[in-house]
Amino acid sequence: MGAAKDVEVREQGEYSAKDYIDPPPAPLIDHEELTKWSFYRALIAEFIATLLFLYITVLTVIGYKSQTDPAKNADDCGGVGILGIAWAFGGMIFVLVYCTAGISGRSPSPCKLNFPSTPPHAHGGHINPAVTFGLFLARKVSLVRAVMYMIAQCLGAICGCGLVKAFQKAYYVRYGGGANELAAGYNKGVGLGAEIIGTFVLVYTVFSATDPKRNARDSHVPVLAPLPIGFAVFMVHLATIPITGTGINPARSLGAAVIYNKDKAWDDQWIFWVGPFIGAAIAAFYYQYILRAGAIKALGSFRSNA
Amino acid sequence: MGAAKDVEVREQGEYSAKDYIDPPPAPLIDHEELTKWSFYRALIAEFIATLLFLYITVLTVIGYKSQTDPAKNADDCGGVGILGIAWAFGGMIFVLVYCTAGISGRSPSPCKLNFPSTPPHAHGGHINPAVTFGLFLARKVSLVRAVMYMIAQCLGAICGCGLVKAFQKAYYVRYGGGANELAAGYNKGVGLGAEIIGTFVLVYTVFSATDPKRNARDSHVPVLAPLPIGFAVFMVHLATIPITGTGINPARSLGAAVIYNKDKAWDDQWIFWVGPFIGAAIAAFYYQYILRAGAIKALGSFRSNA
Amino acid sequence: MGAAKDVEVREQGEYSAKDYIDPPPAPLIDHEELTKWSFYRALIAEFIATLLFLYITVLTVIGYKSQTDPAKNADDCGGVGILGIAWAFGGMIFVLVYCTAGISGRSPSPCKLNFPSTPPHAHGGHINPAVTFGLFLARKVSLVRAVMYMIAQCLGAICGCGLVKAFQKAYYVRYGGGANELAAGYNKGVGLGAEIIGTFVLVYTVFSATDPKRNARDSHVPVLAPLPIGFAVFMVHLATIPITGTGINPARSLGAAVIYNKDKAWDDQWIFWVGPFIGAAIAAFYYQYILRAGAIKALGSFRSNA
Amino acid sequence: MGAAKDVEVREQGEYSAKDYIDPPPAPLIDHEELTKWSFYRALIAEFIATLLFLYITVLTVIGYKSQTDPAKNADDCGGVGILGIAWAFGGMIFVLVYCTAGISGRSPSPCKLNFPSTPPHAHGGHINPAVTFGLFLARKVSLVRAVMYMIAQCLGAICGCGLVKAFQKAYYVRYGGGANELAAGYNKGVGLGAEIIGTFVLVYTVFSATDPKRNARDSHVPVLAPLPIGFAVFMVHLATIPITGTGINPARSLGAAVIYNKDKAWDDQWIFWVGPFIGAAIAAFYYQYILRAGAIKALGSFRSNA
Repeated sequence: MGAAKDVEVREQGEYSAKDYIDPPPAPLIDHEELTKWSFYRALIAEFIATLLFLYITVLTVIGYKSQTDPAKNADDCGGVGILGIAWAFGGMIFVLVYCTAGISGRSPSPCKLNFPSTPPHAHGGHINPAVTFGLFLARKVSLVRAVMYMIAQCLGAICGCGLVKAFQKAYYVRYGGGANELAAGYNKGVGLGAEIIGTFVLVYTVFSATDPKRNARDSHVPVLAPLPIGFAVFMVHLATIPITGTGINPARSLGAAVIYNKDKAWDDQWIFWVGPFIGAAIAAFYYQYILRAGAIKALGSFRSNA
Repeated sequence: MGAAKDVEVREQGEYSAKDYIDPPPAPLIDHEELTKWSFYRALIAEFIATLLFLYITVLTVIGYKSQTDPAKNADDCGGVGILGIAWAFGGMIFVLVYCTAGISGRSPSPCKLNFPSTPPHAHGGHINPAVTFGLFLARKVSLVRAVMYMIAQCLGAICGCGLVKAFQKAYYVRYGGGANELAAGYNKGVGLGAEIIGTFVLVYTVFSATDPKRNARDSHVPVLAPLPIGFAVFMVHLATIPITGTGINPARSLGAAVIYNKDKAWDDQWIFWVGPFIGAAIAAFYYQYILRAGAIKALGSFRSNA
Repeated sequence: MGAAKDVEVREQGEYSAKDYIDPPPAPLIDHEELTKWSFYRALIAEFIATLLFLYITVLTVIGYKSQTDPAKNADDCGGVGILGIAWAFGGMIFVLVYCTAGISGRSPSPCKLNFPSTPPHAHGGHINPAVTFGLFLARKVSLVRAVMYMIAQCLGAICGCGLVKAFQKAYYVRYGGGANELAAGYNKGVGLGAEIIGTFVLVYTVFSATDPKRNARDSHVPVLAPLPIGFAVFMVHLATIPITGTGINPARSLGAAVIYNKDKAWDDQWIFWVGPFIGAAIAAFYYQYILRAGAIKALGSFRSNA
Repeated sequence: MGAAKDVEVREQGEYSAKDYIDPPPAPLIDHEELTKWSFYRALIAEFIATLLFLYITVLTVIGYKSQTDPAKNADDCGGVGILGIAWAFGGMIFVLVYCTAGISGRSPSPCKLNFPSTPPHAHGGHINPAVTFGLFLARKVSLVRAVMYMIAQCLGAICGCGLVKAFQKAYYVRYGGGANELAAGYNKGVGLGAEIIGTFVLVYTVFSATDPKRNARDSHVPVLAPLPIGFAVFMVHLATIPITGTGINPARSLGAAVIYNKDKAWDDQWIFWVGPFIGAAIAAFYYQYILRAGAIKALGSFRSNA
């Protein structure tokens, strides 16, 4: 990636004005960023966003189950259903990426070429250790930043679930605490596969939405970035809630497990870390080496303008 | 905020072209605005928008309940469900913020630097006293304007609920009149907490969507501003309808209580004023002092370009 | 409106660069437009769009009812519900306004001042006689064009419903043919009121989304124009399906009545013409005289730059 | 189309700055594109996108049915319903067109006139042989590219369905494998008609969203392009799931039939190829000859600026 990054193959008949600038790859350890307030601000933003994410979504799950419990009332259809739960997860990601990605990320203005020091989404609005891991693999965030983000996300998730337990004392444990567990009838391989592919869909969308090349060329990318990311989460939940309850976010799975704290949730916990990290790694590889840098790798030297 | 407002910390390698202008803080009392037609026009717009908001949403609540009443028919699934109700609240906020925010707010054009006298969202499209209160705390609207907006919003809400009662004579009282009440099994602290956090999510999104700094830098902000605000309302309703029926808007709670006029709705009414105002205040503080102005507060003097 | 149109009151501290141009009011009868292919093309587009609108939406209504018929199967929740029906109406309007509004409407490019001969939405993408009527009252389309559009819309709606009847022979009549009728328990005044307010919401949104003043100033308006229009339709359906089945579109109501052809649908038909036309007229008045031109009417002469 | 393409009729009072450039029609066979990595990259992207599309959507269908099976549990409303299934199809198309269309398509930047060698959507993000066929008829992709895309799409669909079968061994066959079949009570003509009109709606939206004329003029087109395409798919599913299960995508129908492999799915398979191809052809004709090039055909020579 490093040297090849500034190389681009021009296709015939296309203007070659290079109207975007790839930021240099993030260093593994960037001592200077530790001295900046913006770094700690981003950690606070990740913590708060993940807390709100878990608070709203797990509250929706518990509230739905309490409304559809046949033992409690006969109005089976009063709750929001799996569709409503999927909307809660996808919609909150849309809102929180929208709010949080702007804090320290910079996206180029559509009409003026500026030089963003950091790509959009690089400094906030991950709300998910798998997303952070994927962006780290693509060298868009430093190792230190990635690790600190993941810690902030996990702490936020634990606090968010704790709030739900405090608010829903009567129902929280009874309705499963929003914890991710493999459903009866599915083996671990299926659960792991569902998490890998689901996270692939999410992280692939994140890469598509935050590519500086697309930001410069296509006006539609920065405008809609948070919306397709939210929809990707929505879609994956529709498909895999019956299998694993849908993790694709290790902080979400850990937070629910810590507060719910039952054996089954802990036994399956590894699936919700290994799966998302593998999925994110495949997405990073697919986007960076097949779709984006592929031209340079494969055809290398012809008509480059480096 | 005042003096620090024009200060910005440049991060390394980033162009420092300051392409946005923070409007000066609104005065507490602005006598001149009382002489302008645009002020009264904005009051009319707030009144009509809040009326339409309550009309559509409470009608959806009552219609849904009348369709799922087992005493009336056996087709339990005919109604729109909590998901449909949550869509009604979130969708109407999207539509009405879109329509109303444009009346007197000005957002900078994406391609030309102009000097907006008022930030977008400052002069219309609040439709919610908690939003008005948050923007007042951030000094984006004057005290007089804030108070007059809240009065217009409350009157609009009362009229909107009155229309629903007139249209749904047979069902309005029977199905609870759309009034916010604490559900059985939750104590007042939980209800208050749910309102505080729910309003925090909404007002935090409003601040993110209307920040003039983001408007200038990121093309995606003004474009999508009403959509994430609507989604924030949608999400909070999914999560907290089972607990309080979801207020996060004192005008909405007051309007329904005035028209429904039962003891329980009045006894719980304070929750739906205290909670949203606290939530809005925390959101204003979080956005203005942690996320936005934090750089200046914390690191103060280094590399400022004031 | 005529002379006042070029006058604008500048508020203090605001740049007064007038970066939009109000098109002149449309003549009542414009002989020249009858000689242009673009006029007939727009009629074809209105016909096809209204046909597709009725085809998709009424098919959804009939399919939903056939799936939830307890006499047919016990799976009460298989259908899409009122929420799905509301999505069908709102979503189709979003798609069809998006596709059709571009055919002959011109919206100014965001970065260059051009002089549109016709405002966006003026030459296509109405799909609704009430919208056409509102735009005619605001002098945005000529009388001839308005009448011809309404005829094309009604013919399209009849053909769309005819297709559904042909495709759903077994269920079409049995499940009410998607016809608008006043539900049992509501008097005619309520039905008329629901149609007036519902159409007001729709046409007010259309005016907000197509105002050339907003198009020039705010980048978010042309970008999102079809989306809030679609959402306005969605919201009104959620609220008033239980009362009238929701018309707010005389062509939709007429088309269903012609193909269904039962007394009740014909007896109530006037509600679905009088209501929407009154609602559209109020919206046109509210937008043009209160929100937009109000400044000039009320405060007249001070600081005008005419 | 060929020679007439650069001709445009100016309407009175409109600036005639021709700010878009129609790309030349794609050749039937373009030997050079076979030597480019971007061609193979696009094939990979089509394969992966169609695989993910079928994986998520068919998993949603099977998961929904397993949750609502009365033999399994009594909670009839736990599943996502037809509304959720329609969202899965529409939402995935939105996400995947967003991600994939950017890979090799180029859309003009809003503020600078550039010369795109290929229209957006021409080189990726079809995910559907009917869309590819429509764009081929409009001469936007070469014959070789069209055929290779269809093969990649069909292979991707087969693999996606295979994954679902592997993950849902217990339920896949039992719940119909997501295969498209004509529902009981509808004859083949109705099924074919539903597929034709449904695909017409989709391909008409694709043409509207990717027209270079609109891209240059209207800022809203490239911004929202993937969203209305996704909504068109969503709407068609709401309407025709009860009739055919909704194909409008031959790769989707073939993939499910290959993996499910029952007689009924194979007997009806032709409907899901003939219908979508006819619908796409009509949409291409309607858009290119009625809506777009019509002005030139009909009024030919007057005031052209060729």
